[in-house]
Amino acid sequence: MKKKQFKVIGFDADDTLWVNEPYFQETERIFRELLAAYLPEKEVSEQLFQTEMQNLELYGYGAKAFMLSLIETALRISDNRVPGEIISQIVSLGKELLAKPVILLDGVEHLLQQLSDENVKLIVATKGDLLDQERKLRKSKLEKYFHHIEIMSDKKEADYLSLLQHLGTQPEDFLMIGNSFKSDILPVLQLGGYGIHVPFHVTWEHEKTGSVPDGENFASVSEISEVGTLLELKN
Amino acid sequence: MKKKQFKVIGFDADDTLWVNEPYFQETERIFRELLAAYLPEKEVSEQLFQTEMQNLELYGYGAKAFMLSLIETALRISDNRVPGEIISQIVSLGKELLAKPVILLDGVEHLLQQLSDENVKLIVATKGDLLDQERKLRKSKLEKYFHHIEIMSDKKEADYLSLLQHLGTQPEDFLMIGNSFKSDILPVLQLGGYGIHVPFHVTWEHEKTGSVPDGENFASVSEISEVGTLLELKN
Repeated sequence: MKKKQFKVIGFDADDTLWVNEPYFQETERIFRELLAAYLPEKEVSEQLFQTEMQNLELYGYGAKAFMLSLIETALRISDNRVPGEIISQIVSLGKELLAKPVILLDGVEHLLQQLSDENVKLIVATKGDLLDQERKLRKSKLEKYFHHIEIMSDKKEADYLSLLQHLGTQPEDFLMIGNSFKSDILPVLQLGGYGIHVPFHVTWEHEKTGSVPDGENFASVSEISEVGTLLELKN
Repeated sequence: MKKKQFKVIGFDADDTLWVNEPYFQETERIFRELLAAYLPEKEVSEQLFQTEMQNLELYGYGAKAFMLSLIETALRISDNRVPGEIISQIVSLGKELLAKPVILLDGVEHLLQQLSDENVKLIVATKGDLLDQERKLRKSKLEKYFHHIEIMSDKKEADYLSLLQHLGTQPEDFLMIGNSFKSDILPVLQLGGYGIHVPFHVTWEHEKTGSVPDGENFASVSEISEVGTLLELKN
């Protein structure tokens, strides 16, 4: 990636700043066990993914959408015979998911400290529930580094375009850092912006996609700590 | 209210720009009927309100939070004995709620047309689900009048303060227009901003509060069409 002074750097939140997907996958694992009487566990997951995709346009992303899709899947695969106790357990699982501790990924805070010495506006740009993401940011104690948090209903080209308009920033002055190539990087590159991909070890099926070689506007690093080196930041 | 040139005017969305609360109340009415075997209808509503208040901090506002509270209430008041069919019906009711048509309130579009001739930035400032509110704004065909939509996780003083910081606007240059005195007007007045209260005929229990007489920073009108007269806009 070409050395450059950015005006705004956007950070994805879940699995870029802090752990998220493993919590969802753990919830799904327990869900599969709860429904094992009705369907083999692998098929429970397939049915859940199908429900989530069907509901995506109506519900959007985030834990509440996930909870509603868990409940709907349980009802469908049991032909409405799932006991109320199990639905109650699913509701409780979802509430626990919303209350999970926020565990920062290695190197995140150091990078933010390095960037705070630079003349650049840092924002969090994330999908999911507004309240849930605000709560996680508060718990993370990273609030002080960020100008504000932008909750996006999706992360397609049009969504980044309105984000940039709203920020009054040109694509060539914008760098996005995130773990999903599909959601965090590709649409930004397509607009003429910059992206650094920091893959996380676990990825939600929906976010999986291919990758491209590093170029002028793009780099992929294996740890977020490498971003500082890449941008030639002071230690 | 004192005549003044504002830099930003914020509009609440639900029951200020378009019909909302009657849809929620209709959903609740059907919910009460579905649960009538377990509890008298009035008590079902009381139990629902209690669930909503308990979940407010965790779930926030909006239709998905409402759906989850409906399901939880049904399970609790039936001691988990509510049949899966009824939970399925509740899920369907919630989906219908999310897909309701957007019906503009009288005078809204004319006021926005009048304001579009003025040198003022118009925003939508609303609680609820981001995706749901964006969808309603799109369906409303009012998008063209607004600079952008701000989804707020709550509408307390601190929330308006970060909104104003984010907008780079001083409280004295900001006017908020909305149907909830508690959420749209009072916190803005407390910050030194301006508010115009346009009551809607139906108000959610949680939003009910007293009122204050008109003053330098505040006015109450019975129809949104009166805002144009109040601000001395051209027709």
